Amino acid sequence: MNSHSHTISVRTNHRIEAYSITGQIENVVTRSNIQEGFVLICCPHTTAAIVVNENEPRLVGDLEKMVEDLIPWNKKYAHNEIDGNAASHMVGTILGNSVTLPVTNGSIDLGTWQSIFLLELDGARTRQIKVKVMGE
Amino acid sequence: MNSHSHTISVRTNHRIEAYSITGQIENVVTRSNIQEGFVLICCPHTTAAIVVNENEPRLVGDLEKMVEDLIPWNKKYAHNEIDGNAASHMVGTILGNSVTLPVTNGSIDLGTWQSIFLLELDGARTRQIKVKVMGE
Amino acid sequence: MNSHSHTISVRTNHRIEAYSITGQIENVVTRSNIQEGFVLICCPHTTAAIVVNENEPRLVGDLEKMVEDLIPWNKKYAHNEIDGNAASHMVGTILGNSVTLPVTNGSIDLGTWQSIFLLELDGARTRQIKVKVMGE
Repeated sequence: MNSHSHTISVRTNHRIEAYSITGQIENVVTRSNIQEGFVLICCPHTTAAIVVNENEPRLVGDLEKMVEDLIPWNKKYAHNEIDGNAASHMVGTILGNSVTLPVTNGSIDLGTWQSIFLLELDGARTRQIKVKVMGE
Repeated sequence: MNSHSHTISVRTNHRIEAYSITGQIENVVTRSNIQEGFVLICCPHTTAAIVVNENEPRLVGDLEKMVEDLIPWNKKYAHNEIDGNAASHMVGTILGNSVTLPVTNGSIDLGTWQSIFLLELDGARTRQIKVKVMGE
Repeated sequence: MNSHSHTISVRTNHRIEAYSITGQIENVVTRSNIQEGFVLICCPHTTAAIVVNENEPRLVGDLEKMVEDLIPWNKKYAHNEIDGNAASHMVGTILGNSVTLPVTNGSIDLGTWQSIFLLELDGARTRQIKVKVMGE
């Protein structure tokens, strides 16, 4: 099994922001020369998530609104006394910090309407995403 | 590392439907002859999810009800002006489009009460599920 | 590809409990001698989840409260007539029963603030977690 690791870095601009990383992940897969296997996309932060859905502008805005619908920012949690961002941790836990996708014929096996997003939950910040492509 | 890929197709019958694909995934694992490794189950759609839970009839109905509890169908989202199915995209994003499970001794390492479901969020439709078994 | 499997067992003490398993998972990875690859952490139960977030005491209490915020315990679901724990199944389905994380230089590639939790949703019970480390 071959393995190729790369860390990508993105700068988010808003507190809540769905940021497409599809092209950057595809580039990592292409450079890996792995034809058949999988890619593990992992965010090392506790107030951000990795999700897969459609990159349609109104839907992207809806995703950002959904974060607030899921756990309202001003919901009373004890961690707010420390950092004020408990809701970001809660949504990050619910959505998850990693996604695994198949790689076939040297590219990610995404559906027609699928894009990969870093979902910023406590920006603006510089975020890292660890990408590992494994296979042959 | 050996790799075996197969796409299965299912026809859902309702707008919201938890459809067990456990047997079909097990068949792909058996045909792969891979004894030790893992299986990646990935749905290439943005209004469906892959989840793991118990296949008890009342609970399956509850899962379908939970989708509406999580994000109500008539919740106001901008994407509804385009496709009318924003809630399906939101729930798909929350639940996730893929699941990775261990394969041991040639079969999926599921717990006694675990089944694998395609969770249809905007049916009825024909859906595909990409299955990749990797290992030795 | 080498593969190393181990089942760890934990005893939870409360109905809802975020139980850190980071040290135990790290031990499995160390004993595997795998330097480069990934670890699949999989809970074979339908009323527990595996999640990744920060192990800060107030936040851990918030995670436990979030479970109730997501799906209230007394929400009417049909499965309650059988087992009384439908909410546990619903939250388990939403959060997911498995997590995949990269292994680099022989240890899990976690971010500074990330810990791995078994999230007990219907305790107290003895729970198992299946861990498979794969790579070279």
